[in-house]
Amino acid sequence: MIPSWIDGVPADALSVKDRGLAYGDGLFETVLVKAGQPLLFERHLERLARGSKRLVMALDLPLIERECKAFAAQVNEGVMKLIVTRGDGQRGYAPTADVQPRRVLQASPSPVYPAANAEQGIRLFPCRTRLAEQPLLAGLKHLNRLEQVLARNEWHDTEHAEGLMRDVSGRIVEAVYSNLFMVKRGVLLTPDLTRCGVAGVMRAALLDLAEQNNLPVRALDLDLSDLQKADEVFVCNSVYGIWPVRGFEQLNWPVGPVTRKLQHLVRGLLDI
Amino acid sequence: MIPSWIDGVPADALSVKDRGLAYGDGLFETVLVKAGQPLLFERHLERLARGSKRLVMALDLPLIERECKAFAAQVNEGVMKLIVTRGDGQRGYAPTADVQPRRVLQASPSPVYPAANAEQGIRLFPCRTRLAEQPLLAGLKHLNRLEQVLARNEWHDTEHAEGLMRDVSGRIVEAVYSNLFMVKRGVLLTPDLTRCGVAGVMRAALLDLAEQNNLPVRALDLDLSDLQKADEVFVCNSVYGIWPVRGFEQLNWPVGPVTRKLQHLVRGLLDI
Repeated sequence: MIPSWIDGVPADALSVKDRGLAYGDGLFETVLVKAGQPLLFERHLERLARGSKRLVMALDLPLIERECKAFAAQVNEGVMKLIVTRGDGQRGYAPTADVQPRRVLQASPSPVYPAANAEQGIRLFPCRTRLAEQPLLAGLKHLNRLEQVLARNEWHDTEHAEGLMRDVSGRIVEAVYSNLFMVKRGVLLTPDLTRCGVAGVMRAALLDLAEQNNLPVRALDLDLSDLQKADEVFVCNSVYGIWPVRGFEQLNWPVGPVTRKLQHLVRGLLDI
Repeated sequence: MIPSWIDGVPADALSVKDRGLAYGDGLFETVLVKAGQPLLFERHLERLARGSKRLVMALDLPLIERECKAFAAQVNEGVMKLIVTRGDGQRGYAPTADVQPRRVLQASPSPVYPAANAEQGIRLFPCRTRLAEQPLLAGLKHLNRLEQVLARNEWHDTEHAEGLMRDVSGRIVEAVYSNLFMVKRGVLLTPDLTRCGVAGVMRAALLDLAEQNNLPVRALDLDLSDLQKADEVFVCNSVYGIWPVRGFEQLNWPVGPVTRKLQHLVRGLLDI
């Protein structure tokens, strides 16, 4: 894999004064790269722009776009991770007037998941770590991710490929590194993410794909009783696409026709 | 000021793979240093130990203690910031089996605050940013601090030296970089921090000092109506000690006798 870039220059270390380290004061995007192209890239940039507005960080988005494309061309095949931080700080939460956001690009090989994940589906681990409700940060892919770190540390077996996360009120929100969908009587349902959760790029792509294919879709509050009544369940993200969920605790689901249809449509997005 | 240390060695940059940057996966302590000594250091170490247990990070605490003391001796007068992260990671929330926590030490000059802050007291800005309720992380000084960054960005005047933060349910929790106390009919009251907030080292010291001086003290749920009824209000942290609060919105308080007495006792802790 190629070395990391910091502010457009190959580098493997960044200032200890960076506010990304000090406070998690920044955002990130994890982008699949195929044939030198960053996939679903418009959507990644869109979420980054939304996040930077919410965090009041002035990003040079055209520069970031150019840099990511140049980096992806070098990666060719793999995963590109972009981190943007508010830049260097002094002691204290207030940024200095001259603060300059910093861009970090890292490459890693395409992850190799068991083929069974996409074919026969996965089991979800029931995470005890709950997501706090923070509407100001909901939906963003920001650098404050201790909840996910704690949740991912709850299981170490290979039987569970993902974990189900609920909020402190018990609502189903997402999986640790994926978004979740259910199908019920032909309608696609996915948790509302206005209180917490990461609004995934693949989730957004699926919401559009469903609409284009006349598949009714709703984002709403969902709980464990909805999961019990679901006909199909799947998780998705922008790196692996869609994995059917075949089990969660004592619940089991077949890999249904809506999941298969969406998997087929998503392959079109991820294979260029 | 002396250069930063990373894992005991002078260095000003750290690996872009650090999980502190990627996820805010770590903890920090901000320690006042006088005459080469880190002040209230036992309490700082105690909180660090508590945090590392909660985050399931295996820290070498005796090594950290030795290193901090050696660093503080070089700083002599100023503020020492210790960051511990889980260390370098691969892509993904799960740490690798061989992950090694990283220690970062940074020095900065003693901050110069207006003398009036401690003498006549300060005004608190009413922050609109609410703290999410996350009992798993409550009390810790972890690296996920976007809520404080957003709150501190709400005011830019010099009229307000601190900002009051409430949780999503409206309870008073703390100030942006301080803990808060009220005095009501001779009883010292401070918000319970089991849902959110940072359990400050000076707060812990004050709770002990109060007990030693037969001053009744309670940690409990407090809201704006309690603030309206308070006889005295003050904020505290381990760097500046105690600042009386003289105003919040339309409320005003005198600098009362309990606040003055505690300021006197705290000077004993911070002047060695």
